[in-house]
Amino acid sequence: MEAATTALGDADFAAPVEDRWFEDYVPGEVYAYGSITVTEEEILRFAGEFDPQSIHTDPRAATEGPFGGLIASGWHTCGIMMRLYADHYVSAVASLASPGIDELRWVRPVRPGDTLSLRTTVKEARLSRSKPDRGVVRTAIEVFDQHGDTVLTMTAINILRSRPAVDASRR
Amino acid sequence: MEAATTALGDADFAAPVEDRWFEDYVPGEVYAYGSITVTEEEILRFAGEFDPQSIHTDPRAATEGPFGGLIASGWHTCGIMMRLYADHYVSAVASLASPGIDELRWVRPVRPGDTLSLRTTVKEARLSRSKPDRGVVRTAIEVFDQHGDTVLTMTAINILRSRPAVDASRR
Repeated sequence: MEAATTALGDADFAAPVEDRWFEDYVPGEVYAYGSITVTEEEILRFAGEFDPQSIHTDPRAATEGPFGGLIASGWHTCGIMMRLYADHYVSAVASLASPGIDELRWVRPVRPGDTLSLRTTVKEARLSRSKPDRGVVRTAIEVFDQHGDTVLTMTAINILRSRPAVDASRR
Repeated sequence: MEAATTALGDADFAAPVEDRWFEDYVPGEVYAYGSITVTEEEILRFAGEFDPQSIHTDPRAATEGPFGGLIASGWHTCGIMMRLYADHYVSAVASLASPGIDELRWVRPVRPGDTLSLRTTVKEARLSRSKPDRGVVRTAIEVFDQHGDTVLTMTAINILRSRPAVDASRR
């Protein structure tokens, strides 16, 4: 997996990931990050540990399979998505938890050598009524391959701390 | 990750995973498989590659975090679930694809040393109208820790080939 990834295009948060809070997630904002290229060796290693189905672990058998060749475990694609999401999107200081994911769809197979990028759209940002120091952010996630085809979609749910009030005594 | 896992309890498919087809997934059937123990080293390695948030990568920093200690990436827990699902539940011969997952919920954190098991409940098995050689199976997935507490739930969707008709010429 390639190491260095970056924001794609001009749009990105004004606040860096180390100083980003609930208020920085504004519904309607769209960001793109990438890219990560996945190798056959990585596909085989991931699948050998977590998803030992022959379409993910056996290049020869996979040619006879429903996708006509080796494809990455869908959970591997989710891992690659998460790497871009953690490096660039979700706050490194304000994240309290993720309750889960809705409507995860593996739209197309990911093959050795494919290069994946992430697009995030803030769908909803709602301050908690019971705990006003935090809010719930819902994000539409799309992962694309190098052809611009969608390979994975889902909606992520994150609980993020609000920006701390400025302490007047420390001004 | 421990290697040898097994069916837990008495219930299991009559058909082995190498000869299991759409028809073998009967709504209402419940199966349990396990167990896999996750180590701190595995948590750190997975997170270093796919989810480098400090609650997953830095045991010291994690003690100050929202869970009071290191926890596994939620995607790592999904990978462990998938290992049990692939080894014991989803057919090794009939699986054509998985369109996706609905309502994935990380219910409780998974910590180093936790031992996870899987419970699957066949919720729906519907033959395809357009392609009667296959059907769609929806499975409720629950993952438990060693205390019996639920750590992960989701609904999986699998497309599975029907049992091939016996070829009369080969009888």
